[in-house]
Formats: sequence, structure tokens, C-alpha cells
Amino acid sequence: MDIMNEEDYFKNLTDRERAIFEGGISMGALFHQFVGTPVSVDTASSLEEAIKKSILLQPAVIDVSVKLNRNLIEKCSGVMGYTSLTGEMLSIKLTTKIKEKTITTCISYDENLQYPIMYIED
Amino acid sequence: MDIMNEEDYFKNLTDRERAIFEGGISMGALFHQFVGTPVSVDTASSLEEAIKKSILLQPAVIDVSVKLNRNLIEKCSGVMGYTSLTGEMLSIKLTTKIKEKTITTCISYDENLQYPIMYIED
Amino acid sequence: MDIMNEEDYFKNLTDRERAIFEGGISMGALFHQFVGTPVSVDTASSLEEAIKKSILLQPAVIDVSVKLNRNLIEKCSGVMGYTSLTGEMLSIKLTTKIKEKTITTCISYDENLQYPIMYIED
Amino acid sequence: MDIMNEEDYFKNLTDRERAIFEGGISMGALFHQFVGTPVSVDTASSLEEAIKKSILLQPAVIDVSVKLNRNLIEKCSGVMGYTSLTGEMLSIKLTTKIKEKTITTCISYDENLQYPIMYIED
Repeated sequence: MDIMNEEDYFKNLTDRERAIFEGGISMGALFHQFVGTPVSVDTASSLEEAIKKSILLQPAVIDVSVKLNRNLIEKCSGVMGYTSLTGEMLSIKLTTKIKEKTITTCISYDENLQYPIMYIED
Repeated sequence: MDIMNEEDYFKNLTDRERAIFEGGISMGALFHQFVGTPVSVDTASSLEEAIKKSILLQPAVIDVSVKLNRNLIEKCSGVMGYTSLTGEMLSIKLTTKIKEKTITTCISYDENLQYPIMYIED
Repeated sequence: MDIMNEEDYFKNLTDRERAIFEGGISMGALFHQFVGTPVSVDTASSLEEAIKKSILLQPAVIDVSVKLNRNLIEKCSGVMGYTSLTGEMLSIKLTTKIKEKTITTCISYDENLQYPIMYIED
Repeated sequence: MDIMNEEDYFKNLTDRERAIFEGGISMGALFHQFVGTPVSVDTASSLEEAIKKSILLQPAVIDVSVKLNRNLIEKCSGVMGYTSLTGEMLSIKLTTKIKEKTITTCISYDENLQYPIMYIED
């Protein structure tokens, strides 16, 4: 096989499709990388920052906003003073851009579905 | 907000776009969930099976093929007899389907990029 | 520094202390490796097997018993049909042995502490 | 069963043994939580800080020092500009204390063993 550049892998996608693909990858990545991390109300900011910086490294990601639910962290912490990060605690938006196409991928917890759903914002 | 079904979140995507999105999520998810797992040539099959079964649970995923690179696992194992799973060891294809649209998402290691690249197969 | 064998690192521990140390490492390892994995009642057995086989690779581990709480998996699964593995779902015992000293390390969820506690069984 | 305090679980261990146990748990935990995280030379400090703060939450941990190997991160980054954190990149010491007993648990990469070894410092 000839040597390929990164771009060569994506000739079969439109710019919008690739921005959607990269948004999905990065959201799936951060969920499964960071769920389980020990966290308390006091360390939530540091963890938000590390999640943000690590995901900004991923292809096409140009902006990331991470909010961990401190009320839920507090409620789950019990007498040990901390808990493990769960998907229910995540409110995250990340923006991916391919040329002129910009996509915002979100995760938020849907109580009805009992599920941290990932979707594309209009 | 009204109670939403899962489908309501995806009205702004075509079936193809959603299949691409779900493929990206599931590939990002499995990479970051399983990288780091202790693995040897002898346990590679069991880990392949667990990866496959867990990813088949994800939305829209209808087929998963997982091959871990036993030569690389062997080479990395050293005197301890096992190693930690890395992205370089992964060859995975997963198929997502939304109505009539089917998409195959792949990961394979690109030596030139020094990177386990995720892409959509034609 | 001279070339060291694995054993050389542990000259400052008794056999019992090292068995305790290795039990702690392996229990911490499996918790943080596998929490977050997609799981359903149907895939629980496959995941139990993969956890068991991967942890048996770790130094000094000679036996592992893994039970995932299917009632809790069922309860958390909701309309999506699966959930993410949490520490609350884990009942695990692992046995480490250094020469004649054998230690059993456990994890089980303590409702009072709201915490999946790791301890050494008598 | 009667309601137990955290301390009740550890009546069968000396203070030194429990400090060793907690050191093992926390080192195993951080390895398997953070290996796989996207990291570059520029984000290494943020990740070091998040690892440190999260592990300080764990029982008995009173001090943590985290150094990620920037030379190795640089070397592995390739044209994509970042890489995934591996065990080879970790130099970490954590101190656990139970009453008067203090233990320092370390991880560092041993080239001869091809293995990121965890041990107790004298």
C-alpha cells in the first residue's frame, strides 16, 4: 500500500460526515477513558480541565466544554468523601471542524431513558 | 422538556450520518475502555470475545469483528509473560445500521502515522 | 544500576506483605480497567470471564472469582437494554500466593458506606 | 450483619500491612484508569495534576508525586501530535499512612523486565 496521509482515509466522507464521525469518536473516547475516576466536589475542576485538554488533542476537535454534576458527586460521595465518576454526572459539548463544516456533539443524562445520551446539537 | 424517545435526538441527522456517528462513538468507546487491559497470547481470545459482546450492546451496532495482534502481544510480553493492550494491537471492524443505511467503521494501526487510525470503510 | 530480577524489588517485604500488596494492585487494576464497560444480563458471563482471565495474568494471582450483580444490571439497564458496569455491581475474590503465604482479597459493595470496599478476607 | 465502619474491615491487618494494601490498590487503580488517555508534551502537566488529585482521594493516601516521561511522549507522538498514555511513561510515588506507619509505593519502567513495575520503597 502507498503511504497515506491522514486525509486520504476520509475521501469517502463529506466534511460534515467527517466532523460527525470525529465528534462521535471523541465523545465515546472520553466517556470510557474517564468514567470510574475517583472524584469529589473539591477535585471536580481539576478533572474537568484534564478531560478538556486531553480531548482537545483528538483530530478535528476545536472546542470542549466539560461540566461535572457537583450535586450528584456530593450525593454519591457518602462517608468516604468521594465517588467514582459515572456517565450520569457528565454534561459535555465538543466542537469538531472539517474545513467549513462545524458540528457540536453533546452528552447529557436523560432520566427517562436512564441513559447518558450522545447526540448532535442543531 | 417533553419526554423524548431515543429517535427524537437524531431528527437532524440523515440515516447515513447517524450510522457514521454511532460507529465513531462505539470505536472511541472500545479503544478507551479496553486499552490497558492485561493480555497474553493465551487470553487474547477471551478478551476479543468480551470486547465484541460489549460493543454489540451499543446503539445501532449489528456486527463486530475483533482481532488482537498476537505477534505484537508476544513481542511486548517480556519475562512477565503478559503485557497491557495498546491501540497498536487492535484490528477491529464494526457495522452500524440505521434503517437501510449500513456503515463499517474500522481501526488499524498506520505505521507511517504512528497512530491507530479510525476510518469508514468504502 | 545492576540488572534486577522481579524478586529483587521485594526484598523489603515479607511473603505475606507482598501477597497483600499484589492483591491490592490487582483489585485496584480490575476495578478501574473494567468499570464503564457496556454490560447487560446477557453479556455478564462473557465479561466475568474476561475479567477473570486478565487478572490471572497479574503477578502472584492464582485464583479469581468474579460475580457481577445481574439484578442491579437489569435494574440499571432501562429502555436501552444495557448499562455501564459500576463498582456497585462487583463481587470479586482474588487469591495471591507468595511462597507459602496465601491471601484472599475481596471487593463488595457496602450499602452503609455507599462504597465498593476492598479488604482482605480472614 | 451489623453495620460496619471502614476500620472494621481491617482488623486482620497490621497498620503496616494495611498501608501496603492501600498503596497497591491506589497504584493499580491509577494505572488502569489513566493508561490510554490522549496526551502530548503540552498537556502532560494537566494530566499529572488530575492523576495526583484523584489518587489523593483514595483511602490512606497522603501524598502523590506524578512524573510523565515527556521524552517518550514526544517520541511516540508522531505526525498526529499526541499519543496514548502507556505504563512505560509513568514515574509515580504515592505515600499511604495508617496511624504511625507510612509506606511509599512506586511505579517505574524496568527496561530489562519490559514492565512497569510496582514496588515498595525502602
